[in-house]
Amino acid sequence: MRTYEAVVEAVLATEQIQSFVTSRRPELDIDLGGIPGDRHYGLLRAADSRQRFYRRGTMIANRRQLSLLAAEECDVVASALGVPELRPEWLGANVLLRGYPSLTMLPQGARLIFASGAGLIGEGENEPCIGPGQVIAEAYGRPELARRFVKAAMQKRGIVASVELPGTIREGDRVTIMIP
Amino acid sequence: MRTYEAVVEAVLATEQIQSFVTSRRPELDIDLGGIPGDRHYGLLRAADSRQRFYRRGTMIANRRQLSLLAAEECDVVASALGVPELRPEWLGANVLLRGYPSLTMLPQGARLIFASGAGLIGEGENEPCIGPGQVIAEAYGRPELARRFVKAAMQKRGIVASVELPGTIREGDRVTIMIP
Repeated sequence: MRTYEAVVEAVLATEQIQSFVTSRRPELDIDLGGIPGDRHYGLLRAADSRQRFYRRGTMIANRRQLSLLAAEECDVVASALGVPELRPEWLGANVLLRGYPSLTMLPQGARLIFASGAGLIGEGENEPCIGPGQVIAEAYGRPELARRFVKAAMQKRGIVASVELPGTIREGDRVTIMIP
Repeated sequence: MRTYEAVVEAVLATEQIQSFVTSRRPELDIDLGGIPGDRHYGLLRAADSRQRFYRRGTMIANRRQLSLLAAEECDVVASALGVPELRPEWLGANVLLRGYPSLTMLPQGARLIFASGAGLIGEGENEPCIGPGQVIAEAYGRPELARRFVKAAMQKRGIVASVELPGTIREGDRVTIMIP
């Protein structure tokens, strides 16, 4: 078991379930379904194009409860797009980490343990799609960024995670990352 | 995504929650907690020595709902111990597969999709402990096998898995194994 440390730079959740865009919160209280009230909350979710081995719409265990980003990876993608910053809000992130720059390549099954004791399971790369690209394009008034984001963010768009132990995740928390 | 095929050679569940030893069934109906009535059934389980990063006894998400073995790995361990066979019952297995000989090394996050559509998520190596060794030692009247099992079964004792899509797992089913 290899162990690493990182810091929670921001925590965020959706304001409304109609949009994936998130906004900053002082802390997140998570339970076994994720962040209550958030768009991605639930023990179950409908299978979509990411799970082609199930019929679309079939209710399956929700392992995409939270979205995590590495600040360092966001900076790399911003540079590639020629923009000053990629805000975690635009990518629908719930947790922005700093100090573990290769977050997207974190193996599935890695554990992330926060100061409160709350524990997440890394569920693998969050593959970039056009949605956040469109938000970025609109923010900068540069329509071409929508598609460019999808390519630029490959293997740099962070991970999805599910909850193993409920608790609180706060801005400024230290997080221990454990790779089996 | 790499894809492989295997066959379900047997399905099993515990008779009573007091013992991990399983017995054969014609089929298993699984739901989001695993196999109803089985010793390892539940959405939650108490953290134990395998999850040292949580306080022992804390209720966490149960990702050890089912135990899966490869028949080929059981044969290798049986040879190493000098016994004619290792029955899946003795190891508390729920699903015995044939056709995917390196099951124990299956990466976490791999998917196993059964003929009914039921889907499991591979949750990593099941590390051998003394319990099944004692059952094997008793079955053959050779007390020394208890400890020898633990060493011989390292990286050959199969995996644990959790349920992604409920359904039925039957003896004779084909199973598709997908590695991200």
